[in-house]
Amino acid sequence: MKAKILAAVLGFSFSVSVFSQNRDSLIVKKISDEIFVSGEAYKNIEYLCKKIGSRLTASPGAEKAVNWTRDLMQSYGFDNVYLQEVTVPHWVRGEKEKAEIISSKANGKTPVNITALGGSIATPKEGITAEVVEVNNFDELKKLGKEKIQGKIVFYNHPFDITKIMPFEMYGEAGKYRYIGAAEAARYGAVASIVRSMTNYISEHPNTGAQGYNDSLKKIPCAAISTKHAEQLSSMLKADPQLKFYMKMNCQTLPDTKSYNVIGEIKGTEHPEEIIIVGGHLDSWDLSEGAHDDGAGCIQSIEVLRVFKKLGIKPRRTIRAVMFMNEENGLKGALEYAKQAELKKEKHILAIESDAGGFTPRGFSMSFPKDSTFDVTGVKAKILSRKDYFYPYGAYDFTKKGGGADIGPLGKQGCVLMGLSPDNQRYFIIHHTAMDNFEQINKRELELGAIVMTMMVYFVSEYGL
Amino acid sequence: MKAKILAAVLGFSFSVSVFSQNRDSLIVKKISDEIFVSGEAYKNIEYLCKKIGSRLTASPGAEKAVNWTRDLMQSYGFDNVYLQEVTVPHWVRGEKEKAEIISSKANGKTPVNITALGGSIATPKEGITAEVVEVNNFDELKKLGKEKIQGKIVFYNHPFDITKIMPFEMYGEAGKYRYIGAAEAARYGAVASIVRSMTNYISEHPNTGAQGYNDSLKKIPCAAISTKHAEQLSSMLKADPQLKFYMKMNCQTLPDTKSYNVIGEIKGTEHPEEIIIVGGHLDSWDLSEGAHDDGAGCIQSIEVLRVFKKLGIKPRRTIRAVMFMNEENGLKGALEYAKQAELKKEKHILAIESDAGGFTPRGFSMSFPKDSTFDVTGVKAKILSRKDYFYPYGAYDFTKKGGGADIGPLGKQGCVLMGLSPDNQRYFIIHHTAMDNFEQINKRELELGAIVMTMMVYFVSEYGL
Repeated sequence: MKAKILAAVLGFSFSVSVFSQNRDSLIVKKISDEIFVSGEAYKNIEYLCKKIGSRLTASPGAEKAVNWTRDLMQSYGFDNVYLQEVTVPHWVRGEKEKAEIISSKANGKTPVNITALGGSIATPKEGITAEVVEVNNFDELKKLGKEKIQGKIVFYNHPFDITKIMPFEMYGEAGKYRYIGAAEAARYGAVASIVRSMTNYISEHPNTGAQGYNDSLKKIPCAAISTKHAEQLSSMLKADPQLKFYMKMNCQTLPDTKSYNVIGEIKGTEHPEEIIIVGGHLDSWDLSEGAHDDGAGCIQSIEVLRVFKKLGIKPRRTIRAVMFMNEENGLKGALEYAKQAELKKEKHILAIESDAGGFTPRGFSMSFPKDSTFDVTGVKAKILSRKDYFYPYGAYDFTKKGGGADIGPLGKQGCVLMGLSPDNQRYFIIHHTAMDNFEQINKRELELGAIVMTMMVYFVSEYGL
Repeated sequence: MKAKILAAVLGFSFSVSVFSQNRDSLIVKKISDEIFVSGEAYKNIEYLCKKIGSRLTASPGAEKAVNWTRDLMQSYGFDNVYLQEVTVPHWVRGEKEKAEIISSKANGKTPVNITALGGSIATPKEGITAEVVEVNNFDELKKLGKEKIQGKIVFYNHPFDITKIMPFEMYGEAGKYRYIGAAEAARYGAVASIVRSMTNYISEHPNTGAQGYNDSLKKIPCAAISTKHAEQLSSMLKADPQLKFYMKMNCQTLPDTKSYNVIGEIKGTEHPEEIIIVGGHLDSWDLSEGAHDDGAGCIQSIEVLRVFKKLGIKPRRTIRAVMFMNEENGLKGALEYAKQAELKKEKHILAIESDAGGFTPRGFSMSFPKDSTFDVTGVKAKILSRKDYFYPYGAYDFTKKGGGADIGPLGKQGCVLMGLSPDNQRYFIIHHTAMDNFEQINKRELELGAIVMTMMVYFVSEYGL
């Protein structure tokens, strides 16, 4: 008798499970067809890049993008679309930078391409002209000390380690020379610092990016030099260690101002209190259209919710597309979003960020709350139980840790973090350069990212974590 | 006592196995470092594209490429480098094709981009001007029959099925309209045929490719029309079904001539009689530099052997890089290679082809001999036992069937076939168009392909199958 009941129960749950699997397969196929055939991501990224363009925090472009993404999400009929006010820094580059290597051994002046790092102060009006001290790393800097560095320009020539397989790992390792290079150079009396651009390619285009001064040390102007010119400078220094470097920048930091995160939401039908967000950052650097960084992530996130709406999939949990402001030079939007979530006691169960480029997806990185009561093993297993749905779309890798800068602050609120992991071999050709434009986006690759993001949001909104 | 012996034996084989694993890991890392840091693939593909260029079978470019790859492999010091004579077809495109849509409803003549399909006959000198019958597929063609088709131009407007995930699948499905479209149209008395270009993108660049006449039917001129213009023609036909299409081509087939497969070899130290080949095809279409199709595959194959030589890895089995001639419009090189292998009673255990573009690798497709004595399960397991070495390099997928056109004929000789499987989302923007040039190659993606190919050759040369 017991056996019969058990068999009946098992039979029932088996058919329920087969039923949901069939339904899930159908929905995955519908999501995929919708995005491949009638997707709006590619059209939207074109608009964002070509009609709005660069979106440095507090710039007119950023403001336009705030309004346009709000209007776009409203036009798609999401349940709530709103702006969340954020106080943001306001840094401007000013006129294009000038730089020259001045060497009597090389016929005078050799122009080179530099770009001010975000947050840098200007040089004096007449520019800075000084001798150059080349270092590979901070140890070398320390060994040279004040005596050798005082009054000079420190040149961090630390190349990406191209023996690493993943360019993001190279970036992770070399990034500190950009971020704290100026502060460390100031410690020893340098008058300015230049850093080899953050890329594994040899290119004429310098890669900008954020840097952070040390408040207890003097602020000195700092810039990135293109890798092509970093190689040139290094080789000219070997021939003429006394050569001088001239650089002129008139960037400045204006008073803080107001901007916004842009949020679109579809309310959950069964557990509206459980929130899943999918997002990217709306601001970009000023040198390009911010196509991959991070127009792609924003547009893919909007596409996720659009597809739910278009296909009439009613999410059981609340889903939100969040365009964060100010990821590049402050992270103020991310901090404000997390602060408001905490104040409103919102329960974020999953945050997905796409901020690694709109390239062909390879999987999702994941980070779990450190809280000892959180069942990492169980939640991970639940996520991985749907792995087979992702595999045909090229998203096979769920082994890496990580999430994204904008969703990071939610990690402390018990939220699982995920980052879309696209192939990143082509990323650092364009990352933070003048080249990160619409033309670099491949329609299908962008769409595949949107598809796997929509699938992930669907599964978690349907089954929870 | 027995237990002790067993433990000793197990201990011994355990340490042997750990020893080889450590050694294999070290060698994989050496291969990877060599290709990333000192690799010659990117430099070589640049040379092949920019100094030699297009390499249609029997063209001066193909001849130059034969000599250059031979010289290159000799310069790397492979044990044997030789040419294998092949009789090949000699088709020439002649002057650039001209085509126009002539419609009184659209202000007369609208120029459109077409490209003759490989092997097509010319139009008469004055071109062909005729009405157009648009069909989506062969069923529609058949239904229209002689009555509706006689004297007209058949226009196959069969788009790639973009709901499929993999562009190669779309190509597989639509390819027949290019390959036998002219023959089928001739069956019903058509005077010419045009086929929508084989791509999932809307582009101005038509994609050429091979076609095959049916010897029992009349040969008619045939061309591919760019997808942009296919859409335009289709929409104009709706407004004006009587519009006329003008096309002029003066391509021709000259007498067969001689060309060569180019082969480089490093002799095996333990089982020289067991041969592993890695290859691509040296010929390309005439419209571009043949960078991805298949300069990449040739250059990667040479790189594999170069790395063995440079690192002093002595393969236990014989390894060969084979540049096949005439894959695009005849496959004569592949057939000759297999024929010679059979005549010489060579034992090919593995053939790897890279002919799906020099994009970021995702794995290897595999095909096994159909011979019932062949231990598919065992051999597959042996290959998959090394899967973990490939995973960090992005090559995770060993589930697909396939190999490559050039190595196909070896399948009948008991040889395992493998195809490098790169991501193919970007392929059909450029495939067989004027756009398949060096600029489309990403250095790292090309190198990653070469790395995983070298790894595969290393493992099989070391441990057999």
